[in-house]
This record gives sequence, C-alpha cells and structure tokens, in this order.
Amino acid sequence: MKTIILKENLKQGLNVVEKITGKNLTLPVLNNVLLITEKNFLRLCTTDLEMGISWWTLIKTEKEGKISIPAKLLSSFIGLLPDEKMVLEVKNKTLFIECKKNKTKIKGQDAEEFPIIPKIEEKEFIEVDGYKFCQGLSQIIEIISSSQVRPEISGVYLLFQKNLIKMVGTDSFRLAEKTLSLKNNNIKGDYSLIVPQKTIRELINILGERKEKLKIFFSPNQIMFELVMPGVSHPQVQIISRLIEGEYPDYQEIIPKKYETQIILDKKEFLNQIKTASLFSGKINEVKFEVDPKQGKIEIFTQNPEIGENKSYLLGKTEGQPIEVSFNHKFISDGLSSIQSSEVIFGLNKEGGPAVLKPVGDESYIYVVMPVKAD
Amino acid sequence: MKTIILKENLKQGLNVVEKITGKNLTLPVLNNVLLITEKNFLRLCTTDLEMGISWWTLIKTEKEGKISIPAKLLSSFIGLLPDEKMVLEVKNKTLFIECKKNKTKIKGQDAEEFPIIPKIEEKEFIEVDGYKFCQGLSQIIEIISSSQVRPEISGVYLLFQKNLIKMVGTDSFRLAEKTLSLKNNNIKGDYSLIVPQKTIRELINILGERKEKLKIFFSPNQIMFELVMPGVSHPQVQIISRLIEGEYPDYQEIIPKKYETQIILDKKEFLNQIKTASLFSGKINEVKFEVDPKQGKIEIFTQNPEIGENKSYLLGKTEGQPIEVSFNHKFISDGLSSIQSSEVIFGLNKEGGPAVLKPVGDESYIYVVMPVKAD
Repeated sequence: MKTIILKENLKQGLNVVEKITGKNLTLPVLNNVLLITEKNFLRLCTTDLEMGISWWTLIKTEKEGKISIPAKLLSSFIGLLPDEKMVLEVKNKTLFIECKKNKTKIKGQDAEEFPIIPKIEEKEFIEVDGYKFCQGLSQIIEIISSSQVRPEISGVYLLFQKNLIKMVGTDSFRLAEKTLSLKNNNIKGDYSLIVPQKTIRELINILGERKEKLKIFFSPNQIMFELVMPGVSHPQVQIISRLIEGEYPDYQEIIPKKYETQIILDKKEFLNQIKTASLFSGKINEVKFEVDPKQGKIEIFTQNPEIGENKSYLLGKTEGQPIEVSFNHKFISDGLSSIQSSEVIFGLNKEGGPAVLKPVGDESYIYVVMPVKAD
Repeated sequence: MKTIILKENLKQGLNVVEKITGKNLTLPVLNNVLLITEKNFLRLCTTDLEMGISWWTLIKTEKEGKISIPAKLLSSFIGLLPDEKMVLEVKNKTLFIECKKNKTKIKGQDAEEFPIIPKIEEKEFIEVDGYKFCQGLSQIIEIISSSQVRPEISGVYLLFQKNLIKMVGTDSFRLAEKTLSLKNNNIKGDYSLIVPQKTIRELINILGERKEKLKIFFSPNQIMFELVMPGVSHPQVQIISRLIEGEYPDYQEIIPKKYETQIILDKKEFLNQIKTASLFSGKINEVKFEVDPKQGKIEIFTQNPEIGENKSYLLGKTEGQPIEVSFNHKFISDGLSSIQSSEVIFGLNKEGGPAVLKPVGDESYIYVVMPVKAD
C-alpha cells in the first residue's frame, strides 16, 4: 500500500472509528484500526465484535494494500501532526508515515488477522432525518440499564410502521417513549427490533450533529446505519450492529391513559427544586410530593435524620384530586432532563400507580415513572 | 444567630472556603465550615489543620452567633437556590435557612468544637501585585513532588529581599526559578521560607485572577496572605498556613552558568514535536536530541521495539558544539508548558550536565533539567 492523504481527512475518520477500540487484553487486534485502500478511497474499520464502524475518505492511491494498526496510537499521533499532506506506505507489516519534518514507523498486523466485519446484503432501506432520529434516541437512551438478567430491555426498542417510528427504553422503574413521523417510505408491514444500548450511544456520538439523511438497512439479525459522503455518491460512514434477540415487553399497558391529578410546572424551576430537595433525601432517594389543587401548588419534601430537611413549593395550573406520592428523586430529575420544552405536565395516580412527565405542547414524548412503595 | 444575607454573597464565600474541606473520616468537623457573625460581617472559616481560610461578607445582623455546618452540603444547597435574600438563623445546633419558596434545616455542631484557626500578630507586611505573584507561582508549582523523604523540597521556596522575590521549586530531577521585582517595601534584611505546595495551590486557585494588591504577613512558623474587600477597609479573604521546617538546598549551584550548545526554537512547534515523539518512547520516557549547529537543526528521536519509532526535526538559531543528549520527555514538555514566550532557548551540556529552558527576552524565569543517564 502507498497513498497520499491529507492529515485532516485521516484525523476526522480516526476520531470516529477509534471510539469503539480500547484496551482489549484478550483479543488485542480489536484495539486496531484496519486500513484498506478501495480504489481512490481509504477505508478505516474498527469492531468490538458486537458492532463495526467503517469510514471512507478520498485519497490518492499509488499502490493498493491493507494493514491493521493500533487505533488509539495512530489517532493520537495523527492528531499531533501539522495540517499537511502525508504519505502512508505499508512494508513488512509496518506502516511508514512521512510528512515534511516527521518520519514514523508503526508496527502493525496482517489485515487477514482482523475480524471480518459483517455486511447486510438487503438493498432496501428506510430513510430518516438523521438529526431528529438521534435527538429522539437521546431522549430515551439514558434510562436504559445494561441488565444481564433481562437482555431484551437492555436495548432500545424500535418499531417502524408505515408513517411513524416509535423508540422505547426502560429500566423497569421508568419508561420513555418517543414517536417520530416517517414520510415517503414504502416499507411493507411493521418492523420491530431491539438495538443494543452501546450501538445507539455510538450512533448519537458519531452522527448526533450531522444534518444529512440517514439510511437504515435491516436484516433478521443486524441493523446498519449509513451516511453518504457530501457531494459524492459513496458511503462516508457505516455503523453495523447485531440485534438483541427476544421479545420486548408489551409496554403500552404500563402507560397510564389518565391521571387522578395533574399539574403544569416550569421545567427549570421544578428540576432545580428536585436537585435542592435531593441533598436532604435519605438512602432510598425518596422525595415526597403533595399536590393541593385548591391552591394550585405542589409541595416537595425531603428529610434525612442525619443531615436535616428541606421543604419547597411550586405553583402551577392544577386539575384533579389532592394527592401525596413519593418518588426516587433521580428518576424525576432524569425525566425532566430528557424533556426539551419549558413547561411540563406532571400527571399523578394514587395507590402506587405510575406517574407521567410530558412536555407541554408536544405529544411525541412521554416519560412514565413508578412511585416509591409506601411503607 | 440571625442574619439576612444575599444568596450570591454567601455562595461566593462558600465556593472559596469549601475547597479545603472534604471527606475527613477521622475528624469529621474538618468537613465543616464555621459561620460567625462579626458585627455586620459574616465570617466563613475552614481548615485542614495545615492551613485555614477565612472569608468575610457583608450581612444584616439581627442576632450575633456562630455554628459549624457541613461545608460541601451547604455550598451545594446554596448554589441551587434562586438569587434572593435569605434568612439564616441558628437554633438548637441547627441552621435554619429560609427564602421565598424554600425552608431548610441543616444539622450543625457547636462552634466550640471547631479547631482554632491560628492568627499572626505581626503588623508588618509585604505588599505585592497579587496577579503577578500567583502567575509566577504557577510557573513553579507543577514540578514539585510531595516528597516524604525530603520534606524541605516538598514546598515552594520563597526568598524576599529588598528589591525582589525569588520563587523556587524542584523535584530533584528539575528545578524552576522565577524572580519578581519588589517595589516600595521596607523589609529589614532577607526573609526566606518554605511554603507547603498545597497552600500555594489553594492560593493560586483562590486569588489567581484577582487584580488587587496582596498583603503577605510572616511569623517564624506561619505565613498569611490577605486580600482586602473592594471599597471597604476590611479583609475579604485570609489564607494562613504553617511553614515547612528545614533548610532549602543551595540550588544556585545547580543552575548552569553557560552551555556547550544552545538553540532557539519555536515553543509551540517544539512542544508539539515532543508530544509526538513521546508516543514512541520506551518505559523510561527517553527522547534523544541531536543538535547540529552547522545545519541549525535539532533532531528528535524516540524508539520502542514494541510500537515503532519517530524521527522529527526543528530548525533554529544555533550556537556551540554538536551534541547528543537524552531526556525524559515529560520533563521537557513540563518545562515548555511553564514558559509563556513564543520562543525558547534550549541550552545543553555534555557528560550528564544539566540543560536549561528559558523564555527568549525574559530573564525572570529559568527551568533546569537533568538528562537521562547514558547506558
């Protein structure tokens, strides 16, 4: 292999693909990035065996070839070089990098020792607004726990229907559902699948701010996300991942259809009061809410015999019955943090029934949370 | 105690004094902040028994009193409150804090259980430009190691003379000396003392950006730094610290008076090349330099049999003999990072003699570093 490449292009690609490499001691080749020339493109690939990332960048190829190189080392090194053209050359399992004032050799491994990154042969795909898709996922992802016992809830549930996408996450104490509209797609029937949390995190990390269309390809066991290079009809990045097997719980049952009491609150003030209250909560993070519809008021109370106590209130438009319920303060503040509107609806139910947080004026998002059980 | 205080004023003070409190399990009272009314001031005090910080803020005192309260809790709590007036009241070893929508009780301890913060009775002081003083210290502090074996080099050596202050730090592999001019001070003779590294770090943290005059008071065993409240002739903050006993080494001997070879380099480019080279250095962090005065060039070389190798060069104005010396790359990059000018003088000596890094056009700072011993 011998190619000429711009430092900035190589750096951009390495920054993306290195994210899933690390210090894998049992299988050190997973810490490597595979460099392959494909005509006038250099392809960079990494994998953690659950997911694989490929990134393409334009180069001038003098001689085709491939090698795998420690990813973090290469990325740190390239990041420090000046913005110049550089020559990459592979000889004798070693990558030679030469630019104006700097000559470097990095020991690599045969490309054949690098794990094969699976492909999806399906030609059909769904096209979505990449930015909105990632924004939606980021409202879901934080509450998912990496449960070993119930692997089916350790990922994001995605349901693709004719006109919409539903995204769902839960840790069995709370659940979040986001709905996006899906236009101009001719999918046949519904697709539902569970994508590992890590894949979704990396997708958000890598594509979160990109405004381009995102293509989504499916196979029975895999999903692939693809962005096309601006101005060139060639993929820029592909993220391919295994799916989680199993059946997602029938979560619609848990979402309460009505509330005994509801109050509309300023989100920022509410979040702030919860944080203040949390300093005085006890070992189970309990915070008590008392809604008084007559006064249009919610009182927030925490107490810890060793530290002290805190009582505060907020005013808001209230409907329904007086109520007193306790929650884990973290679950309430997580829910508020995932809501983007300035006002939230807090819907409460008696006798251990689930409560709901929803943005005012936006039906696309709902956050359901179970109360702390009464003593 | 009963007072009215602005949230912002209390927050500012707590942010400063809480820095030296933590999770002290053997003596939990050290995690507290002492609140004392002193006429129309509230004084906040913390200590770790080595140093003490006091901060004063204006209040409206309705009833004098004092209490000690967990510092981190109080600071987190006050930080979350809205910008309002609040009432602080002490009753029954408990601090009651009340503002518009928030009522809080925090359990405290009797002020009598709080350690006594020592005083310096000397009325004489040296006055310095606080900003320049802290800037100078920050060029020294990073290289000091908290040596248990040689406590006398675990602090910053300060020498006050008629017209100047010298600040020195070392870890026995390298040494940095900063000289500041001292005007309009009528000190009698020289004062020299060794201040614990932690005290200097906190001083930089607390006062680093303040532009006011800094007063320095001495006693045989203690030093005190004081800033006065803007517009009021009352201290705003006092930092008092014990001194380190012992004699500072005669460091002047180590500073080389001349070099066999010197080269003037662009600091940023040099630092960047060292960082690049460091990726390929071995276990003892060795980086080899070769200066060729004929070509006006320094070559930088690192090699690690497991990873690869890197060779780069820089051009610069050179004087003296050809030379080849190896250093720990971290010591060179630390030295470069502490230099503020855009160009540096790198002075080298043969046969294990110390090298020097100095800013071009600034005689007030010198960084001395020992080479790696030849095999």
